[in-house]
Amino acid sequence: MRIVQKFGGTSVATPAKLRRVARRVRDAQRSGAEIVVVVSAMGDMTDELIALAHSITHDPASREMDMLLSSGETITAPLLAMSLEAAGTPALSLTGLQAGIRTSRAHRSARIVDIVPQRVLDELEQGRVVVVAGFQGATEDMDITTLGRGGSDTSAVALAVALAAERCEIFTDVAGVYTADPHLVPDARVLPEIAYDEMLEFAAAGARVIHPRAVEIAEAYSVEVRVLHSFEEHPGTIICRHPRMEERQKIRGIAHETDVAKVTLLRVPDRPGIAASIFGPFGDAGINVDIIVQNLAHDGTTDVSFTIAASDLRRARAMLPGVARSVAAQGYMATSDIAKISVVGTGIRGTPGMFARIFSTLAEAGINIEMISTSEIHITCIIERSQVREAVRALHQAFELEKI
Amino acid sequence: MRIVQKFGGTSVATPAKLRRVARRVRDAQRSGAEIVVVVSAMGDMTDELIALAHSITHDPASREMDMLLSSGETITAPLLAMSLEAAGTPALSLTGLQAGIRTSRAHRSARIVDIVPQRVLDELEQGRVVVVAGFQGATEDMDITTLGRGGSDTSAVALAVALAAERCEIFTDVAGVYTADPHLVPDARVLPEIAYDEMLEFAAAGARVIHPRAVEIAEAYSVEVRVLHSFEEHPGTIICRHPRMEERQKIRGIAHETDVAKVTLLRVPDRPGIAASIFGPFGDAGINVDIIVQNLAHDGTTDVSFTIAASDLRRARAMLPGVARSVAAQGYMATSDIAKISVVGTGIRGTPGMFARIFSTLAEAGINIEMISTSEIHITCIIERSQVREAVRALHQAFELEKI
Repeated sequence: MRIVQKFGGTSVATPAKLRRVARRVRDAQRSGAEIVVVVSAMGDMTDELIALAHSITHDPASREMDMLLSSGETITAPLLAMSLEAAGTPALSLTGLQAGIRTSRAHRSARIVDIVPQRVLDELEQGRVVVVAGFQGATEDMDITTLGRGGSDTSAVALAVALAAERCEIFTDVAGVYTADPHLVPDARVLPEIAYDEMLEFAAAGARVIHPRAVEIAEAYSVEVRVLHSFEEHPGTIICRHPRMEERQKIRGIAHETDVAKVTLLRVPDRPGIAASIFGPFGDAGINVDIIVQNLAHDGTTDVSFTIAASDLRRARAMLPGVARSVAAQGYMATSDIAKISVVGTGIRGTPGMFARIFSTLAEAGINIEMISTSEIHITCIIERSQVREAVRALHQAFELEKI
Repeated sequence: MRIVQKFGGTSVATPAKLRRVARRVRDAQRSGAEIVVVVSAMGDMTDELIALAHSITHDPASREMDMLLSSGETITAPLLAMSLEAAGTPALSLTGLQAGIRTSRAHRSARIVDIVPQRVLDELEQGRVVVVAGFQGATEDMDITTLGRGGSDTSAVALAVALAAERCEIFTDVAGVYTADPHLVPDARVLPEIAYDEMLEFAAAGARVIHPRAVEIAEAYSVEVRVLHSFEEHPGTIICRHPRMEERQKIRGIAHETDVAKVTLLRVPDRPGIAASIFGPFGDAGINVDIIVQNLAHDGTTDVSFTIAASDLRRARAMLPGVARSVAAQGYMATSDIAKISVVGTGIRGTPGMFARIFSTLAEAGINIEMISTSEIHITCIIERSQVREAVRALHQAFELEKI
């Protein structure tokens, strides 16, 4: 049996934690598995390296940033290998390049195009645990790349695919995927199992246990993923294609996200191509638009509202006058005083009355809905930020998620 | 014209210093040269990484230490490339592996076996400054290695050889090679030129401006090396085969070293193979022996004294009882209360009365000589550590080095 284990930044933040991780990995290996470990940078190391770069220039070249940032993981990997050796387990560390992770040339958001795992397989054959620096790879010219957000999760799942591993275990500082953020809802439960598509909705809606990119790869190659606590014994959550029937239920959980802002262009004269005129410039500036709502008024104008990450709001504001002028909008508004809550579950499709139940629950709690977006397995509402806790609790209770 | 420039750890210790280094490199490039820059880790970064490893295990695997330590230089290189770009100079950074620096498998003290400089040449061709992470290379299996002490100097000179550079410039925090440590001798002068072999003696005797390994390579391939101050305009010191005749003088300078300890084995019965019995175990333990003095007494026993680095004294002390027993020594002594001073200059050979002049100068200053070692171009004396300043000053004055 072969297992890929991934430990995030908080799990490897100190030498003491590295030693604890090493004991956990050692025990897994002693139970008979071949283990590949993927590690993130220690604690805030990546942020510190970014700050260092920005103390030199506001606009560092992406290629150089990748060289710089990759060193965060390249420091953790040998330290964990040392910890494993000290714990009595033969181990060695590899960079992404050495582990054969080949990527596109898109620095800072490279895509994995191929993994040539020969070196990893050779070392496993020798009985060693292989510790791979996550978040990084290399182009065919041997330039170092990084994979962008969720990079280490992506490294881990992609390695699990390339190595035909039994499963990929994502170790984190929570016990698994919860029905809601336990900080907001004290009786939130850990889901024993969840389907890939439901997990994707959770992740897209703000749950941070695993990055959606990694879930997409896992789904495409049917790799079983387990979300586990790094330092506590807990069965965690299994992410797979078809959770057992008895584990299914209409609603799986309530996700929320507060790093969100809303922009509205007012009374835009409606004509073909208007969406491209509005969203093209934001896309070009690398600003990701999430939910879009458009309502045609009887006078032939339309209000267009959309959400972006709150961290992009400053840059978006600077672009708004130009965009508004280009589409002859009569005005615009922007606020980050909002939040996104999502009800997630495959059970949403084809369940009559589900929408009404959600909206009436929020109405009874005195919560106004500013925008609505739906798919077959989620309903997302934009509400006032100050009402997030109240909204998540009310919905968690309405769907009796504490009884899972 | 092609130049390799090397900047040490103190020269790149902060973002502000990196920006100053970048301006200096930019100016050199604008004056028409192709520039390759070799950088060390920032400030105390290497020591911090070593401490991090030792907080995990007392005996980290050398391969993993190399992976860990190489990240120090791999952080500096892209930061300097960013600084250059910000200063208007196209630049990119390369790891030792990417720069084609192939080494032996001797982790932590690898030797450069070959440099395949194609990538560096391609980038120079494109008009870029190439910033190479010093101190590191890779085996043919792409395992990361480090070059041990003086590694970045060695990287720089070896790259100068492989790139057929006009010269290698070693930038440091002093103005060049001094006739003596200016902290001890206020009127010490910077030597305008010095021969490779003299520089080797200086470096071996404790002058830290450039590592002897790098000087050896420079000598073997006749690469001109210049020692320059990173942030001050000063002509510095040229290290070459034949300094101009008018720059030559019998004595070039006085070096000193206080990281030194003395060990004596008392009244060892003399027999063939005794030196191997004594020095074999220290060599096996990686303890480098510097000066050895042996005096045969009339009773057929001998006192054997030798010097080692003071930082090795604790380990050596632990080995002494066993070594003394194995050669039937009647006792042993060890002290770090000593220092080494060396008078260096090609003029020493064939100059009658030179020894007498040195010894009488020290005698007049009331300084006792504990050990003496000589070669054609140096005379080294071991003295009491408390008398170093006095000894260096007296010799500097006796040879009128302030008049160079």
